[in-house]
Amino acid sequence: MKIITLLTDFGSKSHYAAVMKGVMLSLNPAAQLVDITHEVPPQDVFRGAWLLGEAAPYFPAGTIHLAVVDPGVGTDRACTAARLGDQFFVAPDNGLLGIVARRLPLLEAVRLEQPNYRRAVVSNTFHGRDIMAPAAAHLSLGVTLRELGPRIEALRPLPFPQVERGDDYIEGCVIWVDDFGNLVTNIARKALPEPAAGRAVVTCGDCPLCDWVNTYAERPAGTRVVLFGSSDYLEIAVVQGNAAAELGAGPGTPVRVQW
Amino acid sequence: MKIITLLTDFGSKSHYAAVMKGVMLSLNPAAQLVDITHEVPPQDVFRGAWLLGEAAPYFPAGTIHLAVVDPGVGTDRACTAARLGDQFFVAPDNGLLGIVARRLPLLEAVRLEQPNYRRAVVSNTFHGRDIMAPAAAHLSLGVTLRELGPRIEALRPLPFPQVERGDDYIEGCVIWVDDFGNLVTNIARKALPEPAAGRAVVTCGDCPLCDWVNTYAERPAGTRVVLFGSSDYLEIAVVQGNAAAELGAGPGTPVRVQW
Amino acid sequence: MKIITLLTDFGSKSHYAAVMKGVMLSLNPAAQLVDITHEVPPQDVFRGAWLLGEAAPYFPAGTIHLAVVDPGVGTDRACTAARLGDQFFVAPDNGLLGIVARRLPLLEAVRLEQPNYRRAVVSNTFHGRDIMAPAAAHLSLGVTLRELGPRIEALRPLPFPQVERGDDYIEGCVIWVDDFGNLVTNIARKALPEPAAGRAVVTCGDCPLCDWVNTYAERPAGTRVVLFGSSDYLEIAVVQGNAAAELGAGPGTPVRVQW
Repeated sequence: MKIITLLTDFGSKSHYAAVMKGVMLSLNPAAQLVDITHEVPPQDVFRGAWLLGEAAPYFPAGTIHLAVVDPGVGTDRACTAARLGDQFFVAPDNGLLGIVARRLPLLEAVRLEQPNYRRAVVSNTFHGRDIMAPAAAHLSLGVTLRELGPRIEALRPLPFPQVERGDDYIEGCVIWVDDFGNLVTNIARKALPEPAAGRAVVTCGDCPLCDWVNTYAERPAGTRVVLFGSSDYLEIAVVQGNAAAELGAGPGTPVRVQW
Repeated sequence: MKIITLLTDFGSKSHYAAVMKGVMLSLNPAAQLVDITHEVPPQDVFRGAWLLGEAAPYFPAGTIHLAVVDPGVGTDRACTAARLGDQFFVAPDNGLLGIVARRLPLLEAVRLEQPNYRRAVVSNTFHGRDIMAPAAAHLSLGVTLRELGPRIEALRPLPFPQVERGDDYIEGCVIWVDDFGNLVTNIARKALPEPAAGRAVVTCGDCPLCDWVNTYAERPAGTRVVLFGSSDYLEIAVVQGNAAAELGAGPGTPVRVQW
Repeated sequence: MKIITLLTDFGSKSHYAAVMKGVMLSLNPAAQLVDITHEVPPQDVFRGAWLLGEAAPYFPAGTIHLAVVDPGVGTDRACTAARLGDQFFVAPDNGLLGIVARRLPLLEAVRLEQPNYRRAVVSNTFHGRDIMAPAAAHLSLGVTLRELGPRIEALRPLPFPQVERGDDYIEGCVIWVDDFGNLVTNIARKALPEPAAGRAVVTCGDCPLCDWVNTYAERPAGTRVVLFGSSDYLEIAVVQGNAAAELGAGPGTPVRVQW
């Protein structure tokens, strides 16, 4: 497999992602590079983990995902390569694989310690370039996980906000805001009793909502609606508007469904 | 042909475009994916149509353009695949192909209704992932338009601002602002009588301009100039500056050429 | 070699970069296109040159770098193709290759004047599309530099801020701010006497700093630190913060190291 995806917090104005691409193409000119995003907010491991968890499962078996959101670069946090389900991942072991690991079973993981598969000189501040990009490229050339370094038993977990469940309610929070301003929550469709979905009152922060729809355009522009989004999480949207701006909500805003 | 371009309003901070890439690469790992832009303003079909119309004709014959700006997702608007000139397009049938269709002749169009070429489960909110990306990938594998669904006679048109023409004037409007702040209008070079171009007074909003140039750097920084841009539309620019900001103009601002 | 990178100031909301991609793929459908960035600030040749200089050396031998930051388009500035070290470059001859040329030796350069390798009609305002993208594509097909036009002896240099050196100090400036807000200076690691690094007082604008570290996470969030970044230039950072915003510094801010 020669597909390697990239997800970082490097931003699109910098050369850092291109440097990793150059390093990988120098090792494997046939690698097929696919950007997931380089716009993870700086050092926001949770947001990076979320986006990776949402995107990775859609790629073909054997795809290698290089993910670098790495505030602890140069400290004793490990760099890791892992197989989860039928996908490969290379990332700092800081929770960045924590949401993928909720969806795909961890089959094997190693610490990237084998110097033969690093750049000759390893900096203190850019392990994406010096350790992780080379590891991803070597994987794409057929090097095995086990050759990259010693096995580890587990990946560092990521604290994930849990929902609270009562007899007649469930309470979670906004977990991500997309570029449309849609508020995606951690309340899964299957967590709601069948009759509640579509009837219950949803409170986002202080704002009550009860207009359940199947898709955005069922209501006129400006309507505040509740629906299950494309990943089957409860989502709050303003039709042709920006729910995050209008409701003053964002990651962490509590969301309660009461029936 | 294995080149598939992507144009969406998903933004560069989200995983949605990557999800479509994963879906396409799962069907055709040899597809060559090329981003046009993911920064169409949310749900701005006109802007998406403009950018697609400007970019698509430059691609090689047989290129497949996947364009998703889809405020009506999940309603009864169709998803379509079409051949215009020597290019293929997959898009919601909501006007997004309306500017391409002014430049390239429509040769064939179908509704994407054949379930074999969709994802097994089709959501209400992400037909880009579930219907259109699979269709684009199948086209790249040699599936014909006709196999994707029943033929349709026409695509939904896009209202396009017309110019008004008098004996000694032509009046149009700003139609697009690029990242430099240049104001691109809907007044084509060929719409102006030969002697007028280069001499006429151009009024953009309330601001008169009469400094016609062939290219930006003919005048000192800060000069307001009028020229025909790279697509042969009348354009208003500030040399090494931002005309949109300086003139307070944007899409819809009237522009009059008087000779 | 079929890898062609792109670096421009076109922005990610415009179709201009995609147009160049279409032009290149029309000439060489097997070209492997890699974006460095399209977010160079408009017409900022220095910033483009910096990013290109930082990224290009990491790419495999024979890579072709198409760089277009071209405020003088359509004037008598030349378009050039050049070989520096083992890399090829196509760019306006306006200093954009000036930082690469400090790092890689210039082996050959030509003016892009051969009409056979341009588009049939050359506009006044988009030589990226009409002259430079075709040249890059033809290079990727095996056309030689010499076939593209007449040889030139030198490239236009780029004024580069010099450091001032005294017995017990060195003074330079901030040269680039990355997406994390880290302030990268023009003071190279090797320009400092061994004992000074790690002990000297660094003044950035009016702000004194003396907390030298090897990497960001050695200090708690919010600490202002001094370190050598991944390219071995002196860098000023705020741990998990934005040094540019917090110190009110940016390109040109003086930085003095006193020991």
